[in-house]
Amino acid sequence: MKYVSFTLSDGSAGFGRLHGDTIEVLSSHAADLKAAIDAGTLATLGSEEQLALDSVTLAPVIPNPGKVFCVGHNYETHRQETGRAATEYPSIFVRFADSLGAHNQPIVMPKVSTDLDYEGELAVIIGKGGRYISEEDAMSHVAGYACFNDASVRDWQWHSRQFTPGKNFPTTGPFGPFMVTPDEAGDLSEVNVTTKLNDQIVQQQPIGDMIFPIATVIAYISSFTPLKPGDVIASGTPGGVGAKRTPPLWMKPGDTVTVEIGPMGTLSNTIVAE
Amino acid sequence: MKYVSFTLSDGSAGFGRLHGDTIEVLSSHAADLKAAIDAGTLATLGSEEQLALDSVTLAPVIPNPGKVFCVGHNYETHRQETGRAATEYPSIFVRFADSLGAHNQPIVMPKVSTDLDYEGELAVIIGKGGRYISEEDAMSHVAGYACFNDASVRDWQWHSRQFTPGKNFPTTGPFGPFMVTPDEAGDLSEVNVTTKLNDQIVQQQPIGDMIFPIATVIAYISSFTPLKPGDVIASGTPGGVGAKRTPPLWMKPGDTVTVEIGPMGTLSNTIVAE
Repeated sequence: MKYVSFTLSDGSAGFGRLHGDTIEVLSSHAADLKAAIDAGTLATLGSEEQLALDSVTLAPVIPNPGKVFCVGHNYETHRQETGRAATEYPSIFVRFADSLGAHNQPIVMPKVSTDLDYEGELAVIIGKGGRYISEEDAMSHVAGYACFNDASVRDWQWHSRQFTPGKNFPTTGPFGPFMVTPDEAGDLSEVNVTTKLNDQIVQQQPIGDMIFPIATVIAYISSFTPLKPGDVIASGTPGGVGAKRTPPLWMKPGDTVTVEIGPMGTLSNTIVAE
Repeated sequence: MKYVSFTLSDGSAGFGRLHGDTIEVLSSHAADLKAAIDAGTLATLGSEEQLALDSVTLAPVIPNPGKVFCVGHNYETHRQETGRAATEYPSIFVRFADSLGAHNQPIVMPKVSTDLDYEGELAVIIGKGGRYISEEDAMSHVAGYACFNDASVRDWQWHSRQFTPGKNFPTTGPFGPFMVTPDEAGDLSEVNVTTKLNDQIVQQQPIGDMIFPIATVIAYISSFTPLKPGDVIASGTPGGVGAKRTPPLWMKPGDTVTVEIGPMGTLSNTIVAE
């Protein structure tokens, strides 16, 4: 099944199950999609209330995650283009929730930089929380998947070794359009993450090429911090980022960037100047 | 003035103004200290309700900050002992709020490591939020200061270049005992940050030795992410960390670590095994 979070023209927020172009509105059952995941009842909720998908403004799939983790250099092609040494453990950095964006919400190129890059990724949404989750159990903690663009302000990312500044400008983490549950997503190993900048394919690689598979990443993260329902893990980007091209390929106002991942659909965002 | 957050034996949370060993309880005025800071009315609140300080369990000064930033290598002595190159910008990494601890709350040495290190620091609590705050205005955005121990699980910190894992184990960020407002804290440039491990002074350096002063750090952070009331900035640690001694000096169960910073008092924590 597919789930969306949205806002209405009156500013109120809601969430629901997506059937084609129609939303089965579930907002009466829980405060938001995260709360419904936390309650463990998402699959059983039902409603007669419907909305046309094109009548709402989509929000980030989880608008208010407690924690957003990103995995650095998790595809060999990207690790090699960045010149990073191989590591025994995943590289984990953090996004604040207010850096997220939604499908069709513009990515704002900040006034303090022009080095705005794309990073198409598979986002993993945590269903059941936990600490010291084993790799064997890890996949049972997944509520679903979505497309993610870990858009990066590269000069700020490289101000020091810590990536925080370049990964937290508002709107630079588009996340959507919807969450797909694992049963519907199926086996993802051969499904491509495809990033396009204005119709040019700039990244394309199957999810099975990850250096640290999703189960390994969940187990690792839960070793140092508790995971909770609605937490998000952006699982890393394939090679082909703009910063490592000659000359660099930056996103600029007026561009459209899309991230397409099989059953997770297509996340599309335009770039606007601040 | 000094402010504390606390819990009572019935599990309820509160906050108040500290007068010596007595708390003027202000919980009826706002949900918590962060909310009172956000309302901008903290200094004007008053109450007849009093509690003895030793009748409550202190919480982290701000138990629920939206964002906790840490500054890496912000004293030249520490930068040199780590062998890091000088950078033009502050190095910023992130703690989740659930990694914080309180005065007198034990620091849990996780079962997955014995490389537990201390980092005495001055914490800055944001009063007025903002984006693109100028250095000139930055100090007017400070609600107060407190002691902080950015305790670090060093092997996990160095699993990759991103510090996230080693800085987010639960209880490893003790923060207290109280917040001191800037008017009462006064000029901090000659005030020492002193860290003791079992009565041995292991770090001691004046706040004025910071490479990037507090105003610079606030301006920098607010360039890439909005600051909000109650956000916390741990402003960096002086040289003398245990990891860079020969042999390394790790904290172990039974040890007591304190961070003392003039008017901000003394933050004390014991180490326990998980």
